[in-house]
Amino acid sequence: MVGKRKGEHMLHAPHVGYLAIVGLGPGQRDLMAPRAIQVIQEAELVIGYRVYLEQIHDLLSDKDVHVSELTHEVERATLAVQSASAGRRVCIVSSGDAGIYGMAGLVLDIFSRQSEEIAGNASPVLEPDIEVVPGISALNAASSLLGAPLMHDFAAISLSDLLTPWTTIAQRLSAVASADFVVVLYNPISRKRHWQLGEARRLLLEHRAGTTSVGLVRNAYREGQKVQLTTLEHLLEYDIDMFTTVVIGNSCTRVRQGRMITPRGYEQGRLL
Amino acid sequence: MVGKRKGEHMLHAPHVGYLAIVGLGPGQRDLMAPRAIQVIQEAELVIGYRVYLEQIHDLLSDKDVHVSELTHEVERATLAVQSASAGRRVCIVSSGDAGIYGMAGLVLDIFSRQSEEIAGNASPVLEPDIEVVPGISALNAASSLLGAPLMHDFAAISLSDLLTPWTTIAQRLSAVASADFVVVLYNPISRKRHWQLGEARRLLLEHRAGTTSVGLVRNAYREGQKVQLTTLEHLLEYDIDMFTTVVIGNSCTRVRQGRMITPRGYEQGRLL
Repeated sequence: MVGKRKGEHMLHAPHVGYLAIVGLGPGQRDLMAPRAIQVIQEAELVIGYRVYLEQIHDLLSDKDVHVSELTHEVERATLAVQSASAGRRVCIVSSGDAGIYGMAGLVLDIFSRQSEEIAGNASPVLEPDIEVVPGISALNAASSLLGAPLMHDFAAISLSDLLTPWTTIAQRLSAVASADFVVVLYNPISRKRHWQLGEARRLLLEHRAGTTSVGLVRNAYREGQKVQLTTLEHLLEYDIDMFTTVVIGNSCTRVRQGRMITPRGYEQGRLL
Repeated sequence: MVGKRKGEHMLHAPHVGYLAIVGLGPGQRDLMAPRAIQVIQEAELVIGYRVYLEQIHDLLSDKDVHVSELTHEVERATLAVQSASAGRRVCIVSSGDAGIYGMAGLVLDIFSRQSEEIAGNASPVLEPDIEVVPGISALNAASSLLGAPLMHDFAAISLSDLLTPWTTIAQRLSAVASADFVVVLYNPISRKRHWQLGEARRLLLEHRAGTTSVGLVRNAYREGQKVQLTTLEHLLEYDIDMFTTVVIGNSCTRVRQGRMITPRGYEQGRLL
C-alpha cells in the first residue's frame, strides 16, 4: 500500500507513517493472528491499555510504549493518529477483535476528522497507511469453549448503557428474543452497572423459555478461565462480571454431553 | 485433557483419540491462528472440503487426507467422529471460524449421539478428546477491510433457506432492522438462490433509509479480494455471490474517507 498524497507542492517526500489497529485475540498467544504479531514487531510506537500491553510485553522490548488506563480511549486514539501522521510506524492494540466493540471505530473516526481538516488547508500532507488487523473476538472464543452455539443466526449486544440509552438496548433485546436469535451479551455487568443483566433476562423471558440454554465464559483462553452452562431461569445465580461473555441459546439450542449446540436449521419444527 | 473412560472391564488402555474442529480463517495464512496450524500438523488424518484443503496443502504432505465436495458435510463429520473414536488423531477443517455457521455443530451433534448410544451398551470405550479451535470468521474479516462497521450491536443472518424456512429468516430481518442493528449477511446469494437478497433489502428498507451504508466484501484476504461501499438503495446493482459478505450499517453508520464507521454509542440523538 502507498500513502495518498494531498496537495501539490511537495518537494521532498517525507516518511509515510503507518498505523495498525490490532486485536490481540482472547489472550492465549497461539490464538493471536501472526499478522498481528508482525505489525507489533515492526512498529516503533505501541499504544494500549495497560493490561493488554502486559499480555505482549515480550514483543515490546525495543519500542516506544504508551501505556494508559481503561477510560483513556480518546487520548490513546488521538496519540496513535497524530504519531502516524507525523511519519511514525504505530500500532494501537485492543483485546479480542479491534473491529468488534474495539478501538477501530474511534481511531478511524479521529483519523478521518483530521484528514478532512487537513484537506481544507493548503499544506501538503502525506496520509499514513492504515490497517485494521482482525482478531478472534469474545464471541468466537466463548463459542469455541462452549461447543457450537453460533451455528445459526445470532446477535451481539452490549449491556453497557454508558454511551447508549437503555431504551435502545431494551428494544434490541426484545427484538432478537422474539425472532429467536442466539444472543451474545458483551459487558453484561461492571462495577458500576448491576441491574442490566437482570433486566435483559426479564426481557428475554418474555419470548423464551426458562429452560433456554445459557453459556457463561469468563476469561476465555486466559488464566482463570471458567466455562459454565446454565439456563435463563438460573442465570442470576452465577457470578458474572465484566470478564464474562454470556451466550443465550435459541429455542433449538441444546446441551449434549456437556456442550452447547445450536442446530444448523429448522424443518417443519424438526431440528437439523 | 484426558479421555473419559466408559465401562469397567478395560484390561489394556487403548490409544485415546483426539478430534480438532478447526477454522482456517479467511484464507491468508497470517490470519490463521497458530493453534490451528499446530493441530493440523499434529493430526494423522485431516478431513475437509476440497477448496479448504488446497489452502493448506503444504501442511498435509505426511498425512492421511480425506477430501470431499461441498454438500457432503454429514459424511465428513461422521468420518471425523468415527476415526477419532477409533483412537486416531483427527482434524476436520472449516473456513473462517468453525463455530460460526461452520462444521462444529454438526460434528459435536454426531459425536454426542454416538456417545449416548455407546453409553447405553456395555462395551468399554474411550471417548476422544475434542477441541474446537476458534478462527477469524467472515464477519471479523469483512469488518476489518471495510473500516469499523461492528463497533455497536450487530446481528449475523444467513440468507440460505435450504435448512431454515424463509418466514423465519424474514422475521429476523425485520426484527433487527426495526431495532437498528448493524446486519451481517452470510450466504447472500448462491447459484440456486437468487431472490433472497432482494427480499432482504426490501424488508430492511421498511425500517431503514435508502441512504444506509452497505459494505460488500468478496473473497476477503484471498485472491480476487474486492471491497466496495454502497447504500441499501443501490445494493442490487452490484455483483454479489456466495463468496461475498454483506454488511449493512445502522442508522448512525457513516462512510468517512472511504471507510465504513459505526459510532460507539448514541447520546440524545448525537453520535459518539
